[in-house]
Amino acid sequence: MIIVHKYGGTSVATTEKIMNIAKYLGRVKDAGNDVVVVVSAMGKATDALIKLAHEITENPDSREMDRLMSTGEQQTISLLSIALKTLGYDAISLTGAQAGIKTIGHYMKNRIVDIDAESIKKHLDSGKIVVVAGFQGVNEVGDVTTLGRGGSDTSAVALASALKGKCEIYTDVDGIYSIDPRVYSDAKKLPFISYDEMMELAYLGAGVMEPRAVELGGKYGVEIYVGKSLGEKNGTIITSIEKIKENKKMEQKVITGVSINENTIMVNVEEIPTNAQNVYEIFEKAEKSGINVDMISQNDVSSHHGSFAFTCPKTDMAALEKIGEKIEAKYENTSFIINPYVTKVSIVGIGLISNVGVASKMFKILAENDISFHQISTSEISISLIVDEVMGKRVAELFAKEFDL
Amino acid sequence: MIIVHKYGGTSVATTEKIMNIAKYLGRVKDAGNDVVVVVSAMGKATDALIKLAHEITENPDSREMDRLMSTGEQQTISLLSIALKTLGYDAISLTGAQAGIKTIGHYMKNRIVDIDAESIKKHLDSGKIVVVAGFQGVNEVGDVTTLGRGGSDTSAVALASALKGKCEIYTDVDGIYSIDPRVYSDAKKLPFISYDEMMELAYLGAGVMEPRAVELGGKYGVEIYVGKSLGEKNGTIITSIEKIKENKKMEQKVITGVSINENTIMVNVEEIPTNAQNVYEIFEKAEKSGINVDMISQNDVSSHHGSFAFTCPKTDMAALEKIGEKIEAKYENTSFIINPYVTKVSIVGIGLISNVGVASKMFKILAENDISFHQISTSEISISLIVDEVMGKRVAELFAKEFDL
Repeated sequence: MIIVHKYGGTSVATTEKIMNIAKYLGRVKDAGNDVVVVVSAMGKATDALIKLAHEITENPDSREMDRLMSTGEQQTISLLSIALKTLGYDAISLTGAQAGIKTIGHYMKNRIVDIDAESIKKHLDSGKIVVVAGFQGVNEVGDVTTLGRGGSDTSAVALASALKGKCEIYTDVDGIYSIDPRVYSDAKKLPFISYDEMMELAYLGAGVMEPRAVELGGKYGVEIYVGKSLGEKNGTIITSIEKIKENKKMEQKVITGVSINENTIMVNVEEIPTNAQNVYEIFEKAEKSGINVDMISQNDVSSHHGSFAFTCPKTDMAALEKIGEKIEAKYENTSFIINPYVTKVSIVGIGLISNVGVASKMFKILAENDISFHQISTSEISISLIVDEVMGKRVAELFAKEFDL
Repeated sequence: MIIVHKYGGTSVATTEKIMNIAKYLGRVKDAGNDVVVVVSAMGKATDALIKLAHEITENPDSREMDRLMSTGEQQTISLLSIALKTLGYDAISLTGAQAGIKTIGHYMKNRIVDIDAESIKKHLDSGKIVVVAGFQGVNEVGDVTTLGRGGSDTSAVALASALKGKCEIYTDVDGIYSIDPRVYSDAKKLPFISYDEMMELAYLGAGVMEPRAVELGGKYGVEIYVGKSLGEKNGTIITSIEKIKENKKMEQKVITGVSINENTIMVNVEEIPTNAQNVYEIFEKAEKSGINVDMISQNDVSSHHGSFAFTCPKTDMAALEKIGEKIEAKYENTSFIINPYVTKVSIVGIGLISNVGVASKMFKILAENDISFHQISTSEISISLIVDEVMGKRVAELFAKEFDL
């Protein structure tokens, strides 16, 4: 069996931690597995490199940033290979390019288009543990490219797919929880979660896994284990809903998880002249300013004026304020109201597709507890609410209890 | 004109220094030159990486060390390219591999066998300043390799050779002196020095330039400027003896320089049974222990027992002591005496070839000042003496005065 391990920056932050990982990988190899391991840069190494570039300019060249940022992972692969060899295991480090990871797109946010796994297979066949630099590949002109922050998860899943192996992501959390344990102390760790549910949780702000990695896993059927301990396997397996159903140990719940995203602000645009062009203008400005618009809803429509609301991350506040000033200057009666005191609470579950009772149950809880919400949006397997910031944790707890998470 | 600049670790230690270099390179480019720049890792970055590896093991794998150490230069090329672009100059960074630097040999001490300069030429033709990672290349299996410490000098000279350009080495000394100014305050900076003389000075411990770089310059006739200031050109030009003779501004002296090498220990092996095998045994052991044996001399020969002496760097002391113990254990009457309190003083000059009076003048000075020496060795253009450590500076000063350096 080929197993692709992945260790993030915290896990490889010191040479002592790297040595511990080497020992663990050795045991996995001794158990008869073919081992590939993908690693990130040590600790905060990438942030330190970005800081250096920003000492020179606010807007460093993207191609050069990719080269700069790719060096952190190259240091980790060397050190881990040195550690493995010191323990007596044959090992070899490969850059993204050497591992055959071909990418396309803009520098700093490339995506993997192809993996030529022949080199890795050759090294595995000769008994080596193969250590691959995460977060990077090579583009059509031979330049090193990076996959965006968190891209090492994607590297690992893509390699597991190309090698038809399993993927194990070791991180600083011990698995996927139905709800953040810091919010709800009775939170249960999930032994299994489906790709679709995990993707919703990832996008909704649970932050454990890079959503693109989960998407890739789903697309190519790569089983992904997420956990912390280097010993006992007590984390979470991300797999297909069919595999989960086959597994009789687990009853499928309607709701798998609740997530809270406090990095949310809501904007109400009121009394804007009703005209598709005007709405487009706002979102075009937002896009150009790099604002990541999330939930959009139309609140109120009259014949001549309308209102609508949208949410975006708190980090986009400054850009948002500039747009607000321009809009209010242009339209006499229009208000552009930014509310940073909100939180997004979402429930996620495959069961939502077929279970129409969930939404009504949710509204019943809100009504019984006299909790109002500002906005709602739904997808096939999730429902998200914008509530006052102070109510976020309470709402999540109520949902967690009601849906037995 | 194509000019290849080289900046060492001290010159690129901070982003502020990198920005200053970028401004200078911009002026050189604006003056109508094609500019290639070779850089080292920032400050002590390479040492920090080596320290990390040594936290894991005393003997890290060489291939992995090459990858690890090569990342420092890759960071500098990115940052310098970002700085150049910020100033409005088109620039591109290239790793050793991308710059076409092919190497062969053992990891950690590869040598350049070929440079495919097509990629650099293409970028120069499109008006770019080309920023190349020093100290590294790529071997026949596609692995990154390094050229040994100080290898960036070699990278720069090799590129200048391949591009038929000039080479300018910017370092933390402002040129080549006839004698270390810290030893002799009246030391004169040389406007010119020949490849051969510079090579002797480099090997003899002057330490300004990597000897292999000078050798390469001599072999391919690359003019090398060595200096400090980013403005006025007041450093030293290393070139052929013919070019120096053509230049009427300078009278060729018999002696060009004096060097002091305090990193020297002398070993006297006394009363060893006279037998080529026994001598070979010692040097074989020394070679296997990685000891860099320098001067060797036979002191005294009788029919059955002989004595000889050799020198090596102080850093080899521990390995040397082990060999001494073995030799003394094996041969009953043999003494293996290590003397760390010595210094090597050397005089270098093309004039030595044809000027037989130099050696006698040297001995006269020593005699007049009552200075004894332990060992002497000569090459075509140099004479080296081993003297007591406390006398080293005095001897160098006497020579400097006598030969008007």
